[in-house]
Amino acid sequence: MRQKIGILGATGMVGQRFIQLLENHPWFEVAWLAASDRSSGRKYGDAVKWKLDTELPERIANMTVSPAVPENAPKIIFAALDADIAREMEPAFAAAGCAVISNSSAFRMHEDVPLVIPEVNADHLPLLENQSWRKQSGGYIVTNPNCSAIGLVLVLKPLVERFGIESIFVSTMQAVSGAGYPGVASMDILGNVVPYIKNEEEKMEAETLRLLGSRDGKIVKPLPARMTAHCNRVAVEDGHTESVSVKFSRKPTREEILAAWREFTPLAGRDLPTAPAQPIEFVSLEDRPQPRLDKMRGAGMASTVGRLRPCGLLDWKFTVLSHNTIRGAAGAALLNAELLVSLGKLEPAKLDRVAVSV
Amino acid sequence: MRQKIGILGATGMVGQRFIQLLENHPWFEVAWLAASDRSSGRKYGDAVKWKLDTELPERIANMTVSPAVPENAPKIIFAALDADIAREMEPAFAAAGCAVISNSSAFRMHEDVPLVIPEVNADHLPLLENQSWRKQSGGYIVTNPNCSAIGLVLVLKPLVERFGIESIFVSTMQAVSGAGYPGVASMDILGNVVPYIKNEEEKMEAETLRLLGSRDGKIVKPLPARMTAHCNRVAVEDGHTESVSVKFSRKPTREEILAAWREFTPLAGRDLPTAPAQPIEFVSLEDRPQPRLDKMRGAGMASTVGRLRPCGLLDWKFTVLSHNTIRGAAGAALLNAELLVSLGKLEPAKLDRVAVSV
Amino acid sequence: MRQKIGILGATGMVGQRFIQLLENHPWFEVAWLAASDRSSGRKYGDAVKWKLDTELPERIANMTVSPAVPENAPKIIFAALDADIAREMEPAFAAAGCAVISNSSAFRMHEDVPLVIPEVNADHLPLLENQSWRKQSGGYIVTNPNCSAIGLVLVLKPLVERFGIESIFVSTMQAVSGAGYPGVASMDILGNVVPYIKNEEEKMEAETLRLLGSRDGKIVKPLPARMTAHCNRVAVEDGHTESVSVKFSRKPTREEILAAWREFTPLAGRDLPTAPAQPIEFVSLEDRPQPRLDKMRGAGMASTVGRLRPCGLLDWKFTVLSHNTIRGAAGAALLNAELLVSLGKLEPAKLDRVAVSV
Amino acid sequence: MRQKIGILGATGMVGQRFIQLLENHPWFEVAWLAASDRSSGRKYGDAVKWKLDTELPERIANMTVSPAVPENAPKIIFAALDADIAREMEPAFAAAGCAVISNSSAFRMHEDVPLVIPEVNADHLPLLENQSWRKQSGGYIVTNPNCSAIGLVLVLKPLVERFGIESIFVSTMQAVSGAGYPGVASMDILGNVVPYIKNEEEKMEAETLRLLGSRDGKIVKPLPARMTAHCNRVAVEDGHTESVSVKFSRKPTREEILAAWREFTPLAGRDLPTAPAQPIEFVSLEDRPQPRLDKMRGAGMASTVGRLRPCGLLDWKFTVLSHNTIRGAAGAALLNAELLVSLGKLEPAKLDRVAVSV
Repeated sequence: MRQKIGILGATGMVGQRFIQLLENHPWFEVAWLAASDRSSGRKYGDAVKWKLDTELPERIANMTVSPAVPENAPKIIFAALDADIAREMEPAFAAAGCAVISNSSAFRMHEDVPLVIPEVNADHLPLLENQSWRKQSGGYIVTNPNCSAIGLVLVLKPLVERFGIESIFVSTMQAVSGAGYPGVASMDILGNVVPYIKNEEEKMEAETLRLLGSRDGKIVKPLPARMTAHCNRVAVEDGHTESVSVKFSRKPTREEILAAWREFTPLAGRDLPTAPAQPIEFVSLEDRPQPRLDKMRGAGMASTVGRLRPCGLLDWKFTVLSHNTIRGAAGAALLNAELLVSLGKLEPAKLDRVAVSV
Repeated sequence: MRQKIGILGATGMVGQRFIQLLENHPWFEVAWLAASDRSSGRKYGDAVKWKLDTELPERIANMTVSPAVPENAPKIIFAALDADIAREMEPAFAAAGCAVISNSSAFRMHEDVPLVIPEVNADHLPLLENQSWRKQSGGYIVTNPNCSAIGLVLVLKPLVERFGIESIFVSTMQAVSGAGYPGVASMDILGNVVPYIKNEEEKMEAETLRLLGSRDGKIVKPLPARMTAHCNRVAVEDGHTESVSVKFSRKPTREEILAAWREFTPLAGRDLPTAPAQPIEFVSLEDRPQPRLDKMRGAGMASTVGRLRPCGLLDWKFTVLSHNTIRGAAGAALLNAELLVSLGKLEPAKLDRVAVSV
Repeated sequence: MRQKIGILGATGMVGQRFIQLLENHPWFEVAWLAASDRSSGRKYGDAVKWKLDTELPERIANMTVSPAVPENAPKIIFAALDADIAREMEPAFAAAGCAVISNSSAFRMHEDVPLVIPEVNADHLPLLENQSWRKQSGGYIVTNPNCSAIGLVLVLKPLVERFGIESIFVSTMQAVSGAGYPGVASMDILGNVVPYIKNEEEKMEAETLRLLGSRDGKIVKPLPARMTAHCNRVAVEDGHTESVSVKFSRKPTREEILAAWREFTPLAGRDLPTAPAQPIEFVSLEDRPQPRLDKMRGAGMASTVGRLRPCGLLDWKFTVLSHNTIRGAAGAALLNAELLVSLGKLEPAKLDRVAVSV
Repeated sequence: MRQKIGILGATGMVGQRFIQLLENHPWFEVAWLAASDRSSGRKYGDAVKWKLDTELPERIANMTVSPAVPENAPKIIFAALDADIAREMEPAFAAAGCAVISNSSAFRMHEDVPLVIPEVNADHLPLLENQSWRKQSGGYIVTNPNCSAIGLVLVLKPLVERFGIESIFVSTMQAVSGAGYPGVASMDILGNVVPYIKNEEEKMEAETLRLLGSRDGKIVKPLPARMTAHCNRVAVEDGHTESVSVKFSRKPTREEILAAWREFTPLAGRDLPTAPAQPIEFVSLEDRPQPRLDKMRGAGMASTVGRLRPCGLLDWKFTVLSHNTIRGAAGAALLNAELLVSLGKLEPAKLDRVAVSV
């Protein structure tokens, strides 16, 4: 008996990934699709420009796109909206008693909204109990981070735990799918690099430190580290690659780092369907990870790391890769939802009376 | 009356750039072309796979490729050889009394070999007087830096002079032409990033600090700064893009940095044909520089910089772009040769008796 | 003393090419720029997203964008508008007495509007005398063909003249710049081919036969040949490549074809600044023409042809390449204007009284 | 109980696809890997540059690469060799009693060697009984066609059967993986089209007509149609796209063509593991098929066709797409082997006594 879920922003790139990942999902069933007024009332198959290389499931193609209002929507909502729209719409659904599992940046830095990666900071989830919507209707908003932050944070988490981190340098080479569709113009990226993604560096820095921070009652104290991000767009379809240098509180050996990554399996035993067995995969080949070859590790949910070597400025440097629309977006939200189910907190019947604790 | 020059490695990517840049050069005339044994004796037009988007000049196409030996070669040699071959061949030409203007990495870090960017460290040139070949035959080797180092060093030089630099972080996104031809396989770079270029990080770090270092009699003392480089290959034909963070001895204001770049015209008055009027071009648009749009500034000889903004870890961060086979290779060597002419030190008749001073 | 001209649609990709090509033009001076209401009243440099790899000239950057109405516009207008807008706007300018040199498809197939390539069918120009605007105000519209047709027609013209053509097969691989900016989404073209360009095949077929047709008094009779076009979009920035097969009325030898191309210099002696000395360049290398290497032949105004070989179905097959935004758009219109000047028919003072004959 | 097979040329692109497709194959087990002398004796995981986006199976990585000689090789050999090497090596294995399932072009046009697509011309298989090796040792060679021919032939086969075909025009846009690794240099294909692939047009034309031809006793009579192919390389990793026009003996309606494709399931009932349920998939969206989105239909074994529309020169035109290293290479050979098993003719014990008939 699968729980019915709805998707807000179902026709966009992330919305499409939700549909792809939820096809045959053991716990959730897509029961409601909403998109902009332009699409509302049309068959999804007609309204969408399907851009994935698996076929649009016929059942989904035949669903009618609903208006983006909470009436008649399921109680569990995956939201794949642009930030401006999310700022209006997500609170409306939360106020109506929905669990809003959001991929948008709109509320990520809001004090009461958990910004969560299940392997990293599940203990931030109780923040949602402080949301005004929660208190009124049982509804709430939970968010996952930016596509550029998530792969990095996964890789840093066990290092923070074991050695402490003081400084983080990251320079990204991000795929075009991160900008949605139509997103980046081909004239801008063919044979080119664009060394700028609006607000991306600010989001990446703030979210990384918040995710690695610790909850102290009702607030999250960000990791007290210094960080700088350079964000670049490159001619890659999927998969963000990141050059990273780190300074530790206690400088570990190479072996200690590899062990920290290898032994990082915080969700072991929970049996979440979308969780990769090995969230961090280290690849020892000298020229890896590469987006074309490594982005699908762990079915797109692993963060791949390679080229671990000493840094002339900080302590160690390495390269991180993760799939930006699976682990970096739809898969991240889906895993958040699975974690909430696993905690017994995503049952529609209980949404209005339950306190989340982990 | 133009001086006759020869090109070693004339059929490769950099060799082709030499031919392109020397067409109609006011001071030099291509009089001799040498390549591997496979090409020797053939017409250049038959031996080369011409990969530039200007036409191969007919006069050059009809020249016969010479064996790569000093006999009958001109006294001025532009060398575009792989490092392994350069290690054997460049000394042979220097020993035979040739001025070898080399683009290879083979001797860049040799104590007596000047590694020079004319705008940056022309005062390193006197090192060549210490070369054994120089003393015996008048010949010598002068080198230019790696394609990834040169654009960065140009941009850092006026900052070092005015504010001092303590730390440098750079992450590159390098064009495929830097690997020569056939070089990078298309299967490796289409829709991909390769986060590894053999020996590149080591060369970039060592050369940058040497170029920014100061000559103390017979040796160069590298800049006493800390530096780390991450080198990546991306799907760009020409133009290396670099994300850079810098910590200064005295942190400058934004205006001071811009003034330092704007006022950096160390070759003004020398009238070197290949020298750009403005070696550092600052572009204020928020999403620039970009290789497709900016690589040809200063006819491919300028280093373009943009996105100057505060760094959360060091002091300031910015993006640098330069053309890797013009400013980063053939144009760099050509400008070195022009500087030597300007100093009165590249006249074949005088090669065996002249001491270079600047 | 240069004639003042205006550009309609000045901020788009073709508008930018007009500005680039007109910089330093000996006969014309950009005196007026118009674009959409969104841009009107702003400085051009602020309104445009400049996407060319030469710098936006400072004088142009500082011009104020005018509203797109004929009042205060020069009498000579280069129009780079989308077809829908052109259908409204070009007649307004023609009615106001302007010579509208249009790159749009809106009126190309209109009976009284010359669709012209100067080397091919200058004798179609007198059609403009039949335009109602011409009779009322002296203004008129002259058009150039679609970017995919023009390179092909140049190459076919001397073959039609000497041998007759019965059947034409063409399959194109077109650059993304042909779709304007933002145009083709990067998600659609990276690592991909899109085998469809809206209305392109129809335009290419109809325009080719009209351009190769003959004027019979007031009408043009299209070439009585059969033709089919397959149009595809590929991951190329500039330059359309076309695989072509042709059946002739009289099958020529290889040498006859090469001679027809080589000897095709119909504008010789006219001294039009933008006309290439050799409109058709044959390249004998087995793997050419290629867009990256050959698109700039004749400063982007030549059509390059190669791979001439027997066809198993028709008579001969070959590959054609031309630059789609220079020869295929802005350069085509500019050459049309130069031809009109050369015929003494583009002087603003005379626009309202002159009959064009050639 | 799976049959042991060997792979010749196991480290190349097609060899890697064999390994990928054979992982978990229900009938075959990879038991022997051979490659060039350079790789022989090394662990496969060390010898190969694995370029696929699934992981190299650990069992395979640990296998030792064997010398490429028939001694100790299994009786069933998948051969992924360059033509020059295949010409020497495949006969040696056939002479030693092996069934050589070859992807090479070396023997495709040999009178006694079946060139087979199981859905198209399984009835050509008896040719192998005429091979001298077959008579001496039981061994034989069976081949599959060139990657550019196979998708086209699948789509043409039901049309030939129902309507007859007189003329075929095809212009290809082929992926770089078809050239192996390193294959096409990135400098040649980024932002570019190469309108030439050595010998490809000749192979595509000859193989297509042979595959669609009919066996008459000991020989195959090619389809008596006229055909021309233009072969181009584009910046696509996997998936060949082809623009096709066809003239029929009896011109069918659109509905008749669609029915012919839809009803084409010649392997129905055979239960071959690699056979797609629907060998020809028609996609009705106006801008499809596209390599990025459609190449994996039928797990990479279907040929996708779209854009069916009237042709101005022949009767109908359309676009074909197929995966060049799955259906076009390793998958094609694998399906050939499965067909041979299904016919009871690929059991090692019987290789020396069995006559194949279908």
